[in-house]
Amino acid sequence: MHHMSDDMQACIDRCLSCYSTCLGMAMTHCLEAGGKHTEPAHFRLMLACSEMCRTAAHFMLLATPHHKHTCRECAEICEECAQDCERLGDMDECVKVCRSCAESCRRMAA
Amino acid sequence: MHHMSDDMQACIDRCLSCYSTCLGMAMTHCLEAGGKHTEPAHFRLMLACSEMCRTAAHFMLLATPHHKHTCRECAEICEECAQDCERLGDMDECVKVCRSCAESCRRMAA
Amino acid sequence: MHHMSDDMQACIDRCLSCYSTCLGMAMTHCLEAGGKHTEPAHFRLMLACSEMCRTAAHFMLLATPHHKHTCRECAEICEECAQDCERLGDMDECVKVCRSCAESCRRMAA
Amino acid sequence: MHHMSDDMQACIDRCLSCYSTCLGMAMTHCLEAGGKHTEPAHFRLMLACSEMCRTAAHFMLLATPHHKHTCRECAEICEECAQDCERLGDMDECVKVCRSCAESCRRMAA
Repeated sequence: MHHMSDDMQACIDRCLSCYSTCLGMAMTHCLEAGGKHTEPAHFRLMLACSEMCRTAAHFMLLATPHHKHTCRECAEICEECAQDCERLGDMDECVKVCRSCAESCRRMAA
Repeated sequence: MHHMSDDMQACIDRCLSCYSTCLGMAMTHCLEAGGKHTEPAHFRLMLACSEMCRTAAHFMLLATPHHKHTCRECAEICEECAQDCERLGDMDECVKVCRSCAESCRRMAA
Repeated sequence: MHHMSDDMQACIDRCLSCYSTCLGMAMTHCLEAGGKHTEPAHFRLMLACSEMCRTAAHFMLLATPHHKHTCRECAEICEECAQDCERLGDMDECVKVCRSCAESCRRMAA
Repeated sequence: MHHMSDDMQACIDRCLSCYSTCLGMAMTHCLEAGGKHTEPAHFRLMLACSEMCRTAAHFMLLATPHHKHTCRECAEICEECAQDCERLGDMDECVKVCRSCAESCRRMAA
């Protein structure tokens, strides 16, 4: 029987946490604040980050070896999202979960 | 600013946990065991449960009032999935998370 | 062997078309226009409609009897989205695909 | 205003068509035939292909430049899925849509 490693389980948890935080922040904080928070490039990055995290978690759960590729792309988007949220300010929670998810995904992609 | 209630945050967590467990079990335990575990009606129910949990969490994160409807449907599928996993046996973890998710979703749908 | 009815295949196509149009319009037309187009209630409805269409198509493809419930909810959201897009104006394509998807989903839910 | 190229619109259509065919075949033809069709490696590849197509379409609709990366990964999985379906036989429709989607995704990734 297939057994999931502790590292992979932890990575799934971080991906789902980053998915939740980015999507939840985009749909409340960003939409309600408006201005630079709904500037297309930023808002698209928030939703792309959220969707990539959701997909990376899904691929690990599918138990497919392709999860390495989706984790690599997830790490890249999360890092970019963390930087953009830092630039805007007032999005510390997003920055934190994106960095944590990126670090975990990089390990899974290695 | 929109603030998410503790109940809703807990429900999102249970939905994502049920999504992970059902999808992960289907793609490892069920596929590897075969026999009754890949019988179409059971396997489809596992994937439908997993997908509905994913969608219910998504609707709460979208901050849309329609989350009540997706939570109601999620509670119904989770209850059915729990019963089917009990019938098959050897799927205690699935039964537990499905019941827990169903209970939380029923509260959100009320 | 399972055979998909022509009606179901047509409904999947309309759901995926409505998903594409609503998500694509939200992420380009709405985000770029701003103002009333990124007003939280409208924007959330656009994304909820898009996600529900995606889920309804998925449930039909999963070949689960629960597709009737997801189609019923999809018809309801699509109708609401069509009305909101009509109210805003300049979103004729969205109105059209939402109405067409709602009609098809109502038949599948019956 | 953002305008989607004809090439991108065609790629979204092929991704959604490949997603539908792979998921629909897995949940009916493969589950009902059993045997080699529910062998874990093959079945996981079918679902991974379906999910990657869904994600690649989503990224194009999000209008994010990261769609190039998801299209590249999608082309790779589709090619692998086409080969595996050819090996099994009796899955001509899957082979055809996977090849068509892979070709279109490679162009978008370039």
